[in-house]
Amino acid sequence: MSPTPAPSYSRPVVRLRPKAEARAIRHGFPWVYADELVLDRRTSGMAPGTLAVLEDAERRALGLVTVNPASKIVARMLDRDPEAAVDQAWFEARLARALALRARLYPAPFYRLVHAEADGLPGVVIDRFGEVAVVQPNAAWAEAHLAALVAALVAVTGVATVIKNGSGRARGLEGLAEEMAVVHGPAPTEPVVVPMNGASYMADLMGGQKTGLFFDQRENHALAARLARGARVLDVFTHVGGFALAALAGGAAQALAVDASAPALALAEAGAKASGFGDRFQTRQGDAFAVLEALGAEGARFDLVICDPPAFAPAKPALEAGLRAYERIARLAAPLVAPGGYLVLCSCSHAADLSAFRNASARGIGRGGRRGQILWTGFAGPDHPVLPQLAESSYLKALAFRLDG
Amino acid sequence: MSPTPAPSYSRPVVRLRPKAEARAIRHGFPWVYADELVLDRRTSGMAPGTLAVLEDAERRALGLVTVNPASKIVARMLDRDPEAAVDQAWFEARLARALALRARLYPAPFYRLVHAEADGLPGVVIDRFGEVAVVQPNAAWAEAHLAALVAALVAVTGVATVIKNGSGRARGLEGLAEEMAVVHGPAPTEPVVVPMNGASYMADLMGGQKTGLFFDQRENHALAARLARGARVLDVFTHVGGFALAALAGGAAQALAVDASAPALALAEAGAKASGFGDRFQTRQGDAFAVLEALGAEGARFDLVICDPPAFAPAKPALEAGLRAYERIARLAAPLVAPGGYLVLCSCSHAADLSAFRNASARGIGRGGRRGQILWTGFAGPDHPVLPQLAESSYLKALAFRLDG
Repeated sequence: MSPTPAPSYSRPVVRLRPKAEARAIRHGFPWVYADELVLDRRTSGMAPGTLAVLEDAERRALGLVTVNPASKIVARMLDRDPEAAVDQAWFEARLARALALRARLYPAPFYRLVHAEADGLPGVVIDRFGEVAVVQPNAAWAEAHLAALVAALVAVTGVATVIKNGSGRARGLEGLAEEMAVVHGPAPTEPVVVPMNGASYMADLMGGQKTGLFFDQRENHALAARLARGARVLDVFTHVGGFALAALAGGAAQALAVDASAPALALAEAGAKASGFGDRFQTRQGDAFAVLEALGAEGARFDLVICDPPAFAPAKPALEAGLRAYERIARLAAPLVAPGGYLVLCSCSHAADLSAFRNASARGIGRGGRRGQILWTGFAGPDHPVLPQLAESSYLKALAFRLDG
Repeated sequence: MSPTPAPSYSRPVVRLRPKAEARAIRHGFPWVYADELVLDRRTSGMAPGTLAVLEDAERRALGLVTVNPASKIVARMLDRDPEAAVDQAWFEARLARALALRARLYPAPFYRLVHAEADGLPGVVIDRFGEVAVVQPNAAWAEAHLAALVAALVAVTGVATVIKNGSGRARGLEGLAEEMAVVHGPAPTEPVVVPMNGASYMADLMGGQKTGLFFDQRENHALAARLARGARVLDVFTHVGGFALAALAGGAAQALAVDASAPALALAEAGAKASGFGDRFQTRQGDAFAVLEALGAEGARFDLVICDPPAFAPAKPALEAGLRAYERIARLAAPLVAPGGYLVLCSCSHAADLSAFRNASARGIGRGGRRGQILWTGFAGPDHPVLPQLAESSYLKALAFRLDG
């Protein structure tokens, strides 16, 4: 087959190496790795976020990509149409599609509206809190097109306020600075009340303490709530009351919420009060490991214990240490569970897959002197979609165990 | 260390080989494989279901096991106490523990009450349908102790009727015959009405057509129902109306339910009528692949398509063919999904793990000319617990995709 004459594009062209596999990209894989692309001087010199036409080695156009020569993922697919105009209308189409799913799933407008690649907006995360949207433009292309994105967001959702949260770890690699700013509408003057699973949570969306709110555990909160009727509950790493308030809404007798962050616990307490759970809710500030050890020494027992720690193994180099930390959490938590009670263990570590996390948890439970059955294996909720090609590495896992009697 | 003098037991003793790993069993692994046990003439001659004391190679007792020399899993752990009496009280303790979990999880007494090993009763499955319990004693030890088990079941749950369903595939290996019988109380004279997810299902528990009802998809039904509002729904392999009735309860505009079994479809129709969905429910009897092809040829489109086939890959030798069948299902179903609609694909194959099933499904969707995001990865519900050591092979997987617009 003779090469097709190269069409002329309004944008620069980047090209796959002769042996690179274009099939995956044609089937929807959204990334090009650095070793798959011809990195000539022109491509290597592109500013992060440059829009370019991606071609295969035979110069057939594969689509429109955003390029970052400094990243291992050197190009991300934006559109199968290489000539697509990335303007407000383009953003509106993607946001409308994302909104249709969430509007179907949730009775109230509180959810992750855009979950990056899976919603067709690489590196972009948008959470919606009623009339307020928080945008994380964690990629240079999105930062460059932020005005169009925000205008589209307001047009599609009708939110009154848009906050830019520029604190993502990926931003450094993209050459972007940390920044938190209101980019549309009035700044929220107080925490937003977020209804989930029958409880009211408080989200401080502008707080310097990063005490916002994560929607990803909603389905796992709901499962824990079903186990909570009449229970004494311990929620370690509660943040703004995540599992504890859901458990109280599910009929828990009492809940003790532990976190290292005083501002987070203050919001958890405000949430408990707003939910009408004030008299059943207690907090304890401190290091989670230290509190677990202290509760063990006190001989405390709970019917339901939840541990939802930050990522102990965010990336591969931290995997071994991370798995040891998960095991230690399980070992310290298991003895606090009353006979026949329940233990929910979570991981939001990309590097620890389900099997590794489950093994570490089961080992820890065993070293804590207990045995358990697994009742539930949960992931992030359906407002956090994943592409099938990236599903293996989906970050959030929750395991609900019942321990021996 | 000198060997401890062997205690005398009231039961025969079986012993691990010198190099066999007793640690896993001490940590709760419930099985001994044939190559781990000393299979002398005495042990090899044991009748399937013989109760015996399991010792490690140093003659330390590990617990009470049931032995089947003909099985690859030659011994299954019954109790850590080698002298435990397997009597009505013993069964009552296990059943009470199993019941406490289900009573906590479900508002009405319709659930899997005992899920074999994970509930401490190897090879025993018990489903509860209100006042009727169906016992599957798929292991010789359970058949031998059926009277005590049934008496305990009646005492603990108060059910009026116990049915023995002796149709499990495992029974042949255990030397047990096929049998269906009422072993306690009056025989049900008509199908039992089962409330789940807002719909009423009809379960024919004594039917010669094996049209009972499976509880394992309840959580995945619920997720599909959340996607169903106003939708045109196609439920392939509907059995007694599984996903279709849940979708109608979730507000689907209409549902077409497909199955090869006329008795199953008759029960599905009765369920739709009892649920008040009669005018929104239609059925089509036939081979699922043929119906999918016919619907494709007709140009039919649905907003939500569900395919919940029988196990295409029940065991390893069937894996390749099974994965091709899952891919084919996805390839035929994807074109029937309207732009931006939803596709739920299920597998109940032990041999196809989550990753293999997901890849086959994604490949089929691609070959069907579509792309998709994964919204949900679900397993069997929490009334189907698993032991952590056996969780890798948990049989049921459900994937909810949203397809491209």
